[in-house]
Amino acid sequence: MAHRIGVIGGGQLARMMIPPAIELGLDIRVLAESDDSSARIAATEVGDYRDSATVLGFARGVDVVTFDHEHVPPGVLRELEDMGVAVRPEAEALSCAQDKAVMRDRLGALGAPLPRWAVAETEEQVSDFISGGDGHQVVAKTPRGGYDGKGVRFIGSGDEVADWLALGPVLLEEKVRFVAEVAQLVARRPSGDMATWPLVETRQRDGVCSEVVAPAPLATSVHSEASLLARTIAEALGVTGVLAVEMFVLESGALVVNELAMRPHNSGHVFTELSVTSQFEQHLRAVMDLPLGSTELVAPAGVMVNVFGGVDHEALARVMSLGSRIKVHDYGKSARPGRKAGHVTVTGDDSPELLELGIRAASALTINGLT
Amino acid sequence: MAHRIGVIGGGQLARMMIPPAIELGLDIRVLAESDDSSARIAATEVGDYRDSATVLGFARGVDVVTFDHEHVPPGVLRELEDMGVAVRPEAEALSCAQDKAVMRDRLGALGAPLPRWAVAETEEQVSDFISGGDGHQVVAKTPRGGYDGKGVRFIGSGDEVADWLALGPVLLEEKVRFVAEVAQLVARRPSGDMATWPLVETRQRDGVCSEVVAPAPLATSVHSEASLLARTIAEALGVTGVLAVEMFVLESGALVVNELAMRPHNSGHVFTELSVTSQFEQHLRAVMDLPLGSTELVAPAGVMVNVFGGVDHEALARVMSLGSRIKVHDYGKSARPGRKAGHVTVTGDDSPELLELGIRAASALTINGLT
Repeated sequence: MAHRIGVIGGGQLARMMIPPAIELGLDIRVLAESDDSSARIAATEVGDYRDSATVLGFARGVDVVTFDHEHVPPGVLRELEDMGVAVRPEAEALSCAQDKAVMRDRLGALGAPLPRWAVAETEEQVSDFISGGDGHQVVAKTPRGGYDGKGVRFIGSGDEVADWLALGPVLLEEKVRFVAEVAQLVARRPSGDMATWPLVETRQRDGVCSEVVAPAPLATSVHSEASLLARTIAEALGVTGVLAVEMFVLESGALVVNELAMRPHNSGHVFTELSVTSQFEQHLRAVMDLPLGSTELVAPAGVMVNVFGGVDHEALARVMSLGSRIKVHDYGKSARPGRKAGHVTVTGDDSPELLELGIRAASALTINGLT
Repeated sequence: MAHRIGVIGGGQLARMMIPPAIELGLDIRVLAESDDSSARIAATEVGDYRDSATVLGFARGVDVVTFDHEHVPPGVLRELEDMGVAVRPEAEALSCAQDKAVMRDRLGALGAPLPRWAVAETEEQVSDFISGGDGHQVVAKTPRGGYDGKGVRFIGSGDEVADWLALGPVLLEEKVRFVAEVAQLVARRPSGDMATWPLVETRQRDGVCSEVVAPAPLATSVHSEASLLARTIAEALGVTGVLAVEMFVLESGALVVNELAMRPHNSGHVFTELSVTSQFEQHLRAVMDLPLGSTELVAPAGVMVNVFGGVDHEALARVMSLGSRIKVHDYGKSARPGRKAGHVTVTGDDSPELLELGIRAASALTINGLT
C-alpha cells in the first residue's frame, strides 16, 4: 500500500513535490485553491484551506498532511491533530512560522541572535521603540500573513503604521546592517534525524528573493555557525520537514536570524540540480519519517534565478541554447506582474559566469505580465 | 501557451516522462491502456492504441505525439502523419524498431555489424539456416511485438518454431559469443543535433535487463565505437527522441548490434541520477525540437537494479537506511510475478560496492507478486 500524502495549497512548492512523489511511488494529493492551481495535476480537491470541514475532509483520505504555505489557521490545524491526523510540521512548530512575534519569542528564549525587536499595540509604543534605538532604521511587520516583502515597511514614526495598528499588534525591529543575506536549509524527521545542505546566499530585489548563489561565498566559520544554528532551531522547535532559516551576515561574520519558513523554500530550489537530494524529495521523506537522502553536492556550484511575471514558452529554445546545463522550471501559472512564475538553475564550476548565465536565461524566459 | 505533448501508452516510461514535463511546464497528456496505468496521474484518456479513431482523437489535442512503447500499428501511425500530426519518432524511423527484420535490413545496408541472420517462412528454411552455420546456436525471434525476452527462443530444428511459422515469417540469427552486453543511448532532434550518454553495461537475467553499470567498464575504444555507431544509426534512420542501441561486445572488443529501441529505455534509467540530463527530459526536449541538455555525469559511476514483481512500500524505510545515495523509483503497479515494478539507482565512486548496494536495495524492496 502506497503512502498517501496530502498537501494543503496548490502553489509551486506543492507542484515541485509532485516529481519526487511520482518517483517514490507516493500517492500525493493536493487541496488546491482553484482549478488552475500550479499543482493542478495532483489536485484531488479544490477548496478553502481556512474552512475546517474542507480541510478535515481532505485529511481523512491521507496518511500525512503537509503544506505548500503557512496560512492554514491554527484552529484548523489543532482540529486536525485532535482528529488524530499526522500534521507535519506539527501545529505547535508551525505556530512559530505563522507568527513572527511568536517566532522571535521562541528564538530569543533559545539564545538565537536576533535584531532588537518589540511588539507594539499603540503609536506611542512605536515611537518609544524608534527613539529607544541608536539611530538604526526601524522595520515594521505584520506578525501574520506576510511574505515576499508584503507586510513589511520601513518607518520613522508611529503614524506610518496606524492602519496596521487598527487591526492588531505590529512587530518592530531595528534594520540590521548586513554584508550578505543567507539561508540555511535543514530537514528533520520526527525521530530527530537531520540533514543540512550547504549555506546559500540570497539576493533580493524589492524585498523578494531574486537570485541564489550556492554555496554562499563566505568563510567556513559562517557556514558552520549557520548549520549549527539551523539544527538547534529545528530541534528546539520540533520541526518536521524542511526548515529554511533566513539570516543576515554582519560585517563581523556574525549571523542574525531574520525569518523562518517550515517548508521547502525559494532559497533551496537550486538543490534540485545541485544536490543528490532535492529539498522537495527530502521534505517528503522527512514528513513520511523515512531516512533522509544525501545532501552532497553533485557540482562545485550552482545558481538559481527567479522568473517574475510569466514564463514565455516561445523562448524555451532560445533559453536552452544559451547553455546545456541550464534547467528551466515553469510553475504553470498565467502571467501577472511580479508573480513568481518559474526559475532557472545553472550548475557547474564556481565562477561569476554561472550567475551571469542564470540571469540571462531567466531574463530571456520572462514575460512581464503587463497586458 | 505551453507545449502540449501526447504520450501513447501509460507504462513506466510514460510515467517517468511526467516529472521533467512538470518542471519544464509542458502539458503532458497520456493515452493509457487502463484506469490504473503506471502514468495515470497524467492520463487524459483511456483507450486502445490500436484503434485509429481513438489515437487520432487523442492526437488532435496535442502538438506532438510520442510513445511509451513500439506497438502502435504502422497503419495508425501513417494515418496520424497524413493528418499532419507531428509523430516523433516518425513512422518511417519507428518501423525499424517495430520489426526486427526491417531493422536488420536497414542496419545491414548501413554496414552496421550484425550477427548472421535470415528470415524464414518454412521449417525447411529454418533447417537450412541452422545447417548453414558453423555450429553456433540459433536464436529464433518473432519479428514484431517481442520484448523482455518474450518472442525469443533458442532452437535446434525447424519444428521448434512451427507454431510461429503458422502465423508468419520468423527471424533467425546465430547466437553471438560475447563477453559483455552494452547499450548506447543517443538523443536526436529533428534538426539533426545529437547527444550521447556514456556507454553502459547491461546484465540480463532470463532475457530481461536486470542490472546496469555505468559507465561500462570497457576500453575507451569500445566506448568511442559504440557512440559513433549509435550516432550513425540515429542519423541514418532519422530517429527523433531517444534511441537505445543494444549491442554485444565480442572478445576482440568488436561490437555487434542486437536490438534497437526508439524511446527511453531501461538501460538509461541510471542517468536520471547520474547525468545532468535524464533520458526522459532529453526525450521530451528532442521530440519538441528543443536544444538538448548536457549529458555530463555528476558522479564517477552509477548502477541501476530492476525490481521485479512488486514494490514493497513497507520496506521503503529499510531500503533508504541502507545508503543515503540510494534512489527508489516505484512504477505504481500492482504486484505480479516477473513484472518490472520499479528500480533503484546508486551513484558514487566507481567501486564494486555500488552494485552490491543496488542489488541489496532492490532485493529488500521486492515483493515477488506470488499470492
